Amino acid sequence: MSVVQMVKIVGLGAVALTLSVEWLGWLFCRLWPRKISRGPLKEVFFFPTEVACTERLFTPDSPFPCPCPLPHNVNTSFTRLLGHILSASSSLDLCVFAFTNLDLSRAVLALHARGIPIRILTDMDYTLITGSQIGAIRRAGICVRCDSGAVHMHHKFAVVDGRRLITGSLNWTLTAIQSNKENILVTEEPDLVLPFITEFQRLWDVNDPARRQLPSIAEKTASLVL
Amino acid sequence: MSVVQMVKIVGLGAVALTLSVEWLGWLFCRLWPRKISRGPLKEVFFFPTEVACTERLFTPDSPFPCPCPLPHNVNTSFTRLLGHILSASSSLDLCVFAFTNLDLSRAVLALHARGIPIRILTDMDYTLITGSQIGAIRRAGICVRCDSGAVHMHHKFAVVDGRRLITGSLNWTLTAIQSNKENILVTEEPDLVLPFITEFQRLWDVNDPARRQLPSIAEKTASLVL
Repeated sequence: MSVVQMVKIVGLGAVALTLSVEWLGWLFCRLWPRKISRGPLKEVFFFPTEVACTERLFTPDSPFPCPCPLPHNVNTSFTRLLGHILSASSSLDLCVFAFTNLDLSRAVLALHARGIPIRILTDMDYTLITGSQIGAIRRAGICVRCDSGAVHMHHKFAVVDGRRLITGSLNWTLTAIQSNKENILVTEEPDLVLPFITEFQRLWDVNDPARRQLPSIAEKTASLVL
Repeated sequence: MSVVQMVKIVGLGAVALTLSVEWLGWLFCRLWPRKISRGPLKEVFFFPTEVACTERLFTPDSPFPCPCPLPHNVNTSFTRLLGHILSASSSLDLCVFAFTNLDLSRAVLALHARGIPIRILTDMDYTLITGSQIGAIRRAGICVRCDSGAVHMHHKFAVVDGRRLITGSLNWTLTAIQSNKENILVTEEPDLVLPFITEFQRLWDVNDPARRQLPSIAEKTASLVL
């Protein structure tokens, strides 16, 4: 067999292989459309949500069933949100206007107990509302920075492990979860996640208490002279 | 030339063409990475935004420059948001908690004047706040439905032309745009857009005034008897 014939046969084989793979892919898509992953994670949840027991999410290995009267093993918008928060394995950056929800506070404290670095940015005025969890979170040793501007730090987003964005209209409060009409969008789409990571870092740096303006030496001297 | 030879030549040609296209694509990606569209539209804007003139967005064909003292031809988060709203060509579905911003109201009225079907869902209590644009929008003949539940209809999303989702923490107010720390996410990713379309339709139907519970004939008769 000459070299030219060999090249032709290899060429024809390559064409046949390419076509086969393309057709098999098409066939697979048609037969099992749900099994094909369509890019990075994308989920949307709406609230209010049905009230269900969340104990299993915090103690998945417990041999004892939870005795509480709430429905168990129910998948709700809130259990899915809580699941995403608790899935953090390397970091959690949270930027939230109001934070009073006990389950979400418990989730943050559980991550902290696992040694996962957590940074929380919140609105100064809203740390003072009834039931705010910011005090308890600070007392546990988690780093919290407050935006103390005259206007609101109105964001409600979290970035899990530097790659999963959780954002929407939902504040981390019981009213938002159980009563209001709200939405949460979860995605790992880099074009959507990266701007939030950059904005979080910018706001984190801007609200560094160590960088708050201190009086200069000239100002101090002037005040002493006067 | 025999049929077999012809098949071999066509096969080789196909391989060469496939490889050429793949290599050209790779080369184009390397040379002009920004020019390659990476799937459906995905954008993120943060607020507060610089204040700039928006006149050009409303009157793009005007031969006269705007005489106002604001910066002109500046691309800000707000002009981009406004641009997305004004890009509507077939429909606008808006689900917003608070709506007082005059530019956004003007955009909605401009779309209405162009004959584009608009549906607005809002929170009943927040139609009463100072500066609410809902009255003006209703007077113009745009269909508005109010969620009159005891809790908040806290969404802040819009769907443009049934395919472009605009969602985030930002209410359609001047404070949100010019003062607060806020975010807006714009996407045409179907997995993210479709749930919002479904939820909008559900809330639209639930808040249809014609479907509000009226007393049944039995109840009416009972009240007459009593």
